[in-house]
Amino acid sequence: MEPTTPGEDDINFRTRKWVRPEDLNANGTLFGGSLLRWIDEEAAIYAILQLGNGKVVTKYISEINFVSSAQQGDLVEMGLRATRFGRTSLTMRAEVRNMITRQSILTIEKIVFVNLGPDGQPLPHGYSTITYDRDRIPSTMTTA
Amino acid sequence: MEPTTPGEDDINFRTRKWVRPEDLNANGTLFGGSLLRWIDEEAAIYAILQLGNGKVVTKYISEINFVSSAQQGDLVEMGLRATRFGRTSLTMRAEVRNMITRQSILTIEKIVFVNLGPDGQPLPHGYSTITYDRDRIPSTMTTA
Amino acid sequence: MEPTTPGEDDINFRTRKWVRPEDLNANGTLFGGSLLRWIDEEAAIYAILQLGNGKVVTKYISEINFVSSAQQGDLVEMGLRATRFGRTSLTMRAEVRNMITRQSILTIEKIVFVNLGPDGQPLPHGYSTITYDRDRIPSTMTTA
Amino acid sequence: MEPTTPGEDDINFRTRKWVRPEDLNANGTLFGGSLLRWIDEEAAIYAILQLGNGKVVTKYISEINFVSSAQQGDLVEMGLRATRFGRTSLTMRAEVRNMITRQSILTIEKIVFVNLGPDGQPLPHGYSTITYDRDRIPSTMTTA
Amino acid sequence: MEPTTPGEDDINFRTRKWVRPEDLNANGTLFGGSLLRWIDEEAAIYAILQLGNGKVVTKYISEINFVSSAQQGDLVEMGLRATRFGRTSLTMRAEVRNMITRQSILTIEKIVFVNLGPDGQPLPHGYSTITYDRDRIPSTMTTA
Amino acid sequence: MEPTTPGEDDINFRTRKWVRPEDLNANGTLFGGSLLRWIDEEAAIYAILQLGNGKVVTKYISEINFVSSAQQGDLVEMGLRATRFGRTSLTMRAEVRNMITRQSILTIEKIVFVNLGPDGQPLPHGYSTITYDRDRIPSTMTTA
Repeated sequence: MEPTTPGEDDINFRTRKWVRPEDLNANGTLFGGSLLRWIDEEAAIYAILQLGNGKVVTKYISEINFVSSAQQGDLVEMGLRATRFGRTSLTMRAEVRNMITRQSILTIEKIVFVNLGPDGQPLPHGYSTITYDRDRIPSTMTTA
Repeated sequence: MEPTTPGEDDINFRTRKWVRPEDLNANGTLFGGSLLRWIDEEAAIYAILQLGNGKVVTKYISEINFVSSAQQGDLVEMGLRATRFGRTSLTMRAEVRNMITRQSILTIEKIVFVNLGPDGQPLPHGYSTITYDRDRIPSTMTTA
Repeated sequence: MEPTTPGEDDINFRTRKWVRPEDLNANGTLFGGSLLRWIDEEAAIYAILQLGNGKVVTKYISEINFVSSAQQGDLVEMGLRATRFGRTSLTMRAEVRNMITRQSILTIEKIVFVNLGPDGQPLPHGYSTITYDRDRIPSTMTTA
Repeated sequence: MEPTTPGEDDINFRTRKWVRPEDLNANGTLFGGSLLRWIDEEAAIYAILQLGNGKVVTKYISEINFVSSAQQGDLVEMGLRATRFGRTSLTMRAEVRNMITRQSILTIEKIVFVNLGPDGQPLPHGYSTITYDRDRIPSTMTTA
Repeated sequence: MEPTTPGEDDINFRTRKWVRPEDLNANGTLFGGSLLRWIDEEAAIYAILQLGNGKVVTKYISEINFVSSAQQGDLVEMGLRATRFGRTSLTMRAEVRNMITRQSILTIEKIVFVNLGPDGQPLPHGYSTITYDRDRIPSTMTTA
Repeated sequence: MEPTTPGEDDINFRTRKWVRPEDLNANGTLFGGSLLRWIDEEAAIYAILQLGNGKVVTKYISEINFVSSAQQGDLVEMGLRATRFGRTSLTMRAEVRNMITRQSILTIEKIVFVNLGPDGQPLPHGYSTITYDRDRIPSTMTTA
């Protein structure tokens, strides 16, 4: 498998959520806002592990089609995969699926995160391929 | 002013948020996920008031550029405007701004909501122009 | 219209909430505590915009009558209006309404916020009339 | 001690909160809205235990003076005491204190809850004195 | 009563919770995670008041049997009692009960908290008996 | 590898969390209660996927040693593994690690979930080995 040209089916479904009452909108189906929050958090974690830096921010999210939904009690799984390493950025592809109905909930072709330096400005990260190991985990986290 | 061809500057900034600790990501800046959740909730409310029906769902969100961010204590304002009435859908344009730094945080050209019937299927809503009055507010809400 | 002697019907209904499961009490109606939290946040934002200072605190809330309630899926709107500018304080009138049932949920005659200096002590704010513009928005926010 | 004419110092400080980051406003002090939410929940529980009925709602809250505040890490204690048994209502007095600074945070002279029947209408509860026992706890809870 | 050898029935049921929709798991019963969170917070507060220090951390929790559960609208009460004062630690016994069904929800024989110094290292606290007074409340809280 | 006698190092670290301000206790370190809530939710999802049934409840958690903690911005990973299939139950082993400090946060030898029938009573699940496939995912979820 070539990490620089990953196929569409290489997504690694990793995190799962159990839809609870607090995740529902007023119609009783999965609140879109909860879903977007889960994806953004998952993408931030993935970016940190690929770029070896805790200071990353969401820069761009491509269009989102909400194909199906989920209900209370459903299991939802989220998958992410790096698709491009820019000089200071990382592009990921995301998919969210309903494990119970076996349907895709949504797909996002591009989520771009930018790697920041201590001054909050974009900083080259020096990576060009996906790691499947734990070799880039930062040993300290600089928080604001 | 022609409601059917609204200009870009017709957005009505209505709801404001005060960025609290619980809205921050681990870097101490506004968590993208909180922001997306706020937008989705705001759009749902706007759609209900325009379509006169409480059963609406997010169908599509066009690309999102995160131009600037916000910090704890900043005031963030969100604006929405209907840009197209489809047969069973409503398209809106959204903008979020940081009132303190006077910078745009993000703009979304298209957020599409679909009007649903009691059976959960798309239902024609019968409207083609924006209302600025309260003439379409549903008198009962059907929840799941 | 005279901003220094605003009438009761000048309230500007600005922020709307869609009542979700997480806002309900154990009886399935709108949790009074959620409602009070929404009002306090809204009043803080309004006070910051009127006084041009991010360091404001709730000082006093006059009596509250809970006239009607709301259920899951209902839309609730909140309105605020400055009614008196003290030397270091701002007094507001608040009303909350259920948009679906068209009933008032509650009215609060006086919510008083105090303007604080960097030392946390009351500080004269120098304003005596309502602004409808954005001319007082602080350009930096001092947070603790 | 006469339960029907309770003195001001009979308040029973029962529940304590540890102020966490999620309870702070954007100034880093205790968010007034969190405080009001805690009080309303506490009063509901107290009313249920005194009236022996799970279907109670907040009807009235008298004026609130915010005398002092609290910071992250402070311990806050809340006390409640029944002061009047109406035919379908219960009136309570509330006080909130900061255990660390030993200062009162706020006092509320009257919080009135109404006892509801299964139809959601006010229902006589039949009690006229405070219970210090567990003799009125309902054996089933009717939820919406 | 000898505080150094407290009996099993000396537990003081202090804090009560009203089970709201946000506390439910996807099956509609009390979410175990919410319950564990309530207990940990309650134990931290109890430890601070016994050890006179705001810098305490959870060190150990003995086995937990979930005997019964609770539903929306139920009242849950939590009790804690110090059972052993170590040199730098405090051991507590916890019980949680459903007030409506009169059943025990769970019992935890040992919850151990450790007293920390400003450097984050275990620090002797100097106490060997339970206080029922307010004589050990710290007058300042050191937060990170 | 023998699924019926899994070794201690077979744990599959799957879900990761980014420690945000809302997950902190008042000392600024990871709130034990948030951690326990994450584990319980993760175990519920794992049990549903192994037992092919959405109606599962936490029955028992063995002792928990809090070996190290985490701070804002740290990444925390959780791993679970089935260690015993009873007639109506499933036993799992859990470990939580801090990815940044490379330290174990805690280990739980036994988390036992029980498989329930539609009547809420324990029901034999019919499985005796771990599945690594998606062959047991229920096709409908029965919620209360």
